Amino acid sequence: MKHPTLIQTPTQTQFLSVEDVAALVSQVGIAATLQRLADYILEDYRRWQDFDKCARVASHSSDGVIELMPIADAITYAFKYVNGHPKNTRLGLPTVMAFGVLADVATGIPVLLSELTLSTALRTAAMSAVAARALARPDSKRMALIGNGAQAEFQALAFHYLLGIEEIRLFDTDALATRKLMRNLQHTGLRLSACTSIAQAVRGADIVTTVTADKTNATILTPDLIEPGMHINGVGGDCPGKTELHPEVLRAASVFVQYEPQTRIEGDLQQMPADFAVTELWQVLRDQAPGRTSEAQITLFDSVGFALEDYSALRYLRDAAAALGLGQALSLLPELANPKDLFSLVRPASHEQAAASARADAEPALAWAA
Amino acid sequence: MKHPTLIQTPTQTQFLSVEDVAALVSQVGIAATLQRLADYILEDYRRWQDFDKCARVASHSSDGVIELMPIADAITYAFKYVNGHPKNTRLGLPTVMAFGVLADVATGIPVLLSELTLSTALRTAAMSAVAARALARPDSKRMALIGNGAQAEFQALAFHYLLGIEEIRLFDTDALATRKLMRNLQHTGLRLSACTSIAQAVRGADIVTTVTADKTNATILTPDLIEPGMHINGVGGDCPGKTELHPEVLRAASVFVQYEPQTRIEGDLQQMPADFAVTELWQVLRDQAPGRTSEAQITLFDSVGFALEDYSALRYLRDAAAALGLGQALSLLPELANPKDLFSLVRPASHEQAAASARADAEPALAWAA
Repeated sequence: MKHPTLIQTPTQTQFLSVEDVAALVSQVGIAATLQRLADYILEDYRRWQDFDKCARVASHSSDGVIELMPIADAITYAFKYVNGHPKNTRLGLPTVMAFGVLADVATGIPVLLSELTLSTALRTAAMSAVAARALARPDSKRMALIGNGAQAEFQALAFHYLLGIEEIRLFDTDALATRKLMRNLQHTGLRLSACTSIAQAVRGADIVTTVTADKTNATILTPDLIEPGMHINGVGGDCPGKTELHPEVLRAASVFVQYEPQTRIEGDLQQMPADFAVTELWQVLRDQAPGRTSEAQITLFDSVGFALEDYSALRYLRDAAAALGLGQALSLLPELANPKDLFSLVRPASHEQAAASARADAEPALAWAA
Repeated sequence: MKHPTLIQTPTQTQFLSVEDVAALVSQVGIAATLQRLADYILEDYRRWQDFDKCARVASHSSDGVIELMPIADAITYAFKYVNGHPKNTRLGLPTVMAFGVLADVATGIPVLLSELTLSTALRTAAMSAVAARALARPDSKRMALIGNGAQAEFQALAFHYLLGIEEIRLFDTDALATRKLMRNLQHTGLRLSACTSIAQAVRGADIVTTVTADKTNATILTPDLIEPGMHINGVGGDCPGKTELHPEVLRAASVFVQYEPQTRIEGDLQQMPADFAVTELWQVLRDQAPGRTSEAQITLFDSVGFALEDYSALRYLRDAAAALGLGQALSLLPELANPKDLFSLVRPASHEQAAASARADAEPALAWAA
């Protein structure tokens, strides 16, 4: 293990690039990374009341959405910037890109800036595993994975390594996406098969994961496909106007959510009346509410992605990067000998420079634009 | 002029450090920088209706506040991260620190990440000048400057270079802050004098700028200090529970604000009833509402800092940095040959590595934490 990168001054920000996070995952191992992320998420969800929470702040356009997701406890503040642009893949760009910041509540200093595109896929998969561990049948072995895009491999591996899933049946309207997933996961112990329909993939599955990207009210799962005892891990219905499940699927299931005010707006729950009953997952994780209560019960985790998972992911990245010596210092904040002397950053160094600067400043360029 | 730094791939983010922005100001000149910022702000305020606006999202703690300030038009999204921690100076840290991002609405790509601590002081001063140009008496020559902390020099210079202020009378409870300001501005054409009371500083002033940092309901200006024809540039009352003006000062004045919903919560306006009349400044800048209507009128700009000024500042920084070749590329986003193949970032390169990785992944470290 290398020595951690030393932050030279308290106002420097540690920066983790995409390459740093990829190196971190490679050194830790993807299974262990997912497990650690799940542990951090579990730890934070179990102290749910410590957090100052709000629904994310979204800016919608015709092409997609840009969101800010802040959250804080008494010690640490975190936020994520994330976009969702389904048509980006046509431009060769990811649908979802993200970065985030951890900051010190006592001073406001942003201590860590990290890529979160890769990390969002990892933490979303870890979150799904945390929920499924509380909600799916413990003997679950077979999963259907509908939507084989950027996040699919991470979901597959989280369920393989953390839940014991051995077989995954795949479906995507884009056959190339399914082929890519099968190629990426060919050396794992997973048994993978491509299906020609959603129904074929879902039949006999213990867990059904939906992680599609279309920003529409789609109907990926209809009630006739749902079998007793299934756990549905609904990941792709996560934006106003973007759903994956027929309303009757929600009615047939016990529905669990991250943060109810946000899921009512963004989740598949957006289709249901305001009094449709749901349980916040933290209550189950703290044994304050039941999770699965019978073999035959249908459980649904209406996952939308909540700021707390990013808080957990940033916290893990900070700890793991420090242990591995990854990252570099970024000069995002000024270092001032006198904190009230911000002007020292632009003060001319000598009388001559000051005079020259004053002459330059007096030039007639200084006229207001029309 | 150097060639602009070329962004190699569409997913790289241009980064401007504190040193880059300081170099930019030094090369452009502080007067010209303030003037250009004022021009950009004026241009954006005149197309107010183009913007999707919201009050900033604040996370309060006992020591201070951390805020996110997003705004977007159809082309460009911007947000700023900014803190306010009055006790930071005791730790040798600035009270206010900030950074911000410009992003492409069509794809969600963050194209620019910049320091905004220095830039916030510059843009706040430029905004004050834009407002004063519309609201102060055109023959204004003397200003009182109450609060001589980190932002004070920038306010002084904006009023000197952009408004023609020749004399500034200074007051701060911290005499060292005043001395620092006088030393910093000794080579400018400004006549500066330190006063022993707020009343002494304010007497006979054409413009009164208050820019104090205490997070309390302070009363910097009382009605007896206000003279006919004064313009008050109230900068420091910008947070719930943080005000500078006696309510009767607001009643005596015509009050102008940036974005009414935010100023009602954060400005000195927070002390007034919900129906207390104010005018949004953009209406004056578009000639849709009167600014100053008489010599004797008392005008007040209840400045709280609005996301649009940061949008303007980031836009200016992007343009000026490109022209001067400042900044560097930051690997904040992944570059993917296939945008649906995010997993390629962590895929083992060979079958052997994959097998080793699978073995490592199968180790008993993979157990859920208790």
